[in-house]
Amino acid sequence: MTRIACCQLDPVLGDLDANSELIGSAVAEAVRDGADIVVLPELATSGYMFADEGEARAAALSPSAPHFTKWADAVGDSLAVLGFSELGEDGNLYNSAAVIDAGGVVAIYRKTHLWDRERLIFTPGSQRPPVLQTPHGLVAVMVCYDLEFGELTRQVTVGGAELIVAPVNWPLFPRPEGERPGEVITAMSTARLNRVAVAACDRAGVERGQEWTGGTAIVDQNGWVVASVGSGVGRAVADVDLALSRDKKLTEHVDLLADRRLDLY
Amino acid sequence: MTRIACCQLDPVLGDLDANSELIGSAVAEAVRDGADIVVLPELATSGYMFADEGEARAAALSPSAPHFTKWADAVGDSLAVLGFSELGEDGNLYNSAAVIDAGGVVAIYRKTHLWDRERLIFTPGSQRPPVLQTPHGLVAVMVCYDLEFGELTRQVTVGGAELIVAPVNWPLFPRPEGERPGEVITAMSTARLNRVAVAACDRAGVERGQEWTGGTAIVDQNGWVVASVGSGVGRAVADVDLALSRDKKLTEHVDLLADRRLDLY
Repeated sequence: MTRIACCQLDPVLGDLDANSELIGSAVAEAVRDGADIVVLPELATSGYMFADEGEARAAALSPSAPHFTKWADAVGDSLAVLGFSELGEDGNLYNSAAVIDAGGVVAIYRKTHLWDRERLIFTPGSQRPPVLQTPHGLVAVMVCYDLEFGELTRQVTVGGAELIVAPVNWPLFPRPEGERPGEVITAMSTARLNRVAVAACDRAGVERGQEWTGGTAIVDQNGWVVASVGSGVGRAVADVDLALSRDKKLTEHVDLLADRRLDLY
Repeated sequence: MTRIACCQLDPVLGDLDANSELIGSAVAEAVRDGADIVVLPELATSGYMFADEGEARAAALSPSAPHFTKWADAVGDSLAVLGFSELGEDGNLYNSAAVIDAGGVVAIYRKTHLWDRERLIFTPGSQRPPVLQTPHGLVAVMVCYDLEFGELTRQVTVGGAELIVAPVNWPLFPRPEGERPGEVITAMSTARLNRVAVAACDRAGVERGQEWTGGTAIVDQNGWVVASVGSGVGRAVADVDLALSRDKKLTEHVDLLADRRLDLY
């Protein structure tokens, strides 16, 4: 069993120091409670509602920044995944996710599908999401809107991912009463179509008038939500058997990957 | 507005005559109530739980069978889509959907993704689902398990489909209390990721011990279920503005198709 924790935080726009503390505490607490994989929101270091590129740059970090070393100290034998505004060596800004273990930054993924005004601020990544072999399972990392492209979630499944981890910031959209957020419905569908677990960590709070969904969800390989937070700050924790992701057969004659008709698409 | 009706019937295994009557009445009633597009279940002519290929063959129809002419008489200016066991000119059996207007059979689609034991009985189709220009909108036709392949639902979206119509037979799977059936969750996700309407017509009843989900659902382009039946025989009816499917832009900077990263997958 792999214990997954999603920390639905409420970062402060532009306050790198405060957010850095918040992230460090959240990781340390989740690890203390036995989490193997800790997921934090998209742009957890900076907040989201930048007025312009300058604000995103002022709160940006290079992957060699000392902040990552501090978080690595908190993570111990576990793994943390968090979103941050990345200042690339090329001077561009990226909406990135960092994977951190005790040794520091293991991998950086730069969001390839930028949502809405993000494209006025960030440069889209040019590399596919990584599928990382970790002591806690084969983990694919993507960011928010990436999850809405079935091409990508299928690709990492074919690449062996047992768990898709995604820092997200889901702006609140209206939905009929009693319905889950649309993004959660897609995470559930992604899980069942690919027989892969999904952990999406959303944020809480209101930022410059933008409400967030608070839709954090851990979804098992059958597509059911096994942990969530609801509105506000909180933590979703679930123990998931990631080995289940390895077998795509549902019955003797059904195999979700082998059944694809690659001759037709 | 296009009025879509899904008739969740309970066909009798192997009784072509009885099922033919049932289909004719269902189409006539739906059309009388103003339906532009009438959808019936997968294998509505024959039932589903064949013991072997011989039983499926005994209840099979060629697209030139007089049954289709009779149903065409009932359909008037509307369109009907129904699943049937097709006897091909090549002698093979196909799990097919027929699209029927007043003039007769407009198109046949042979299910390309066969579910479970179907592959012991039917030959998989070799052609992509058609996207048909009809007086009631651009309609893609697929069958049941086809809907679970995001590659296919994306493909028909790119091909211009405004509505995906699918005769289905969804065997009942256990699900947590309060959750929609997994197949409906996938239909909802398909709709919102592609901004396309989806009409899936399930069946009712129990056949040789197999319970069906009764999951019939009409889903709008935002991914919300606008009509369903629940368990038992019944009809789901919804008026859907299919023109909404033509615009994939959610905001000034978000376009669900243009935002794909075709350089990465």
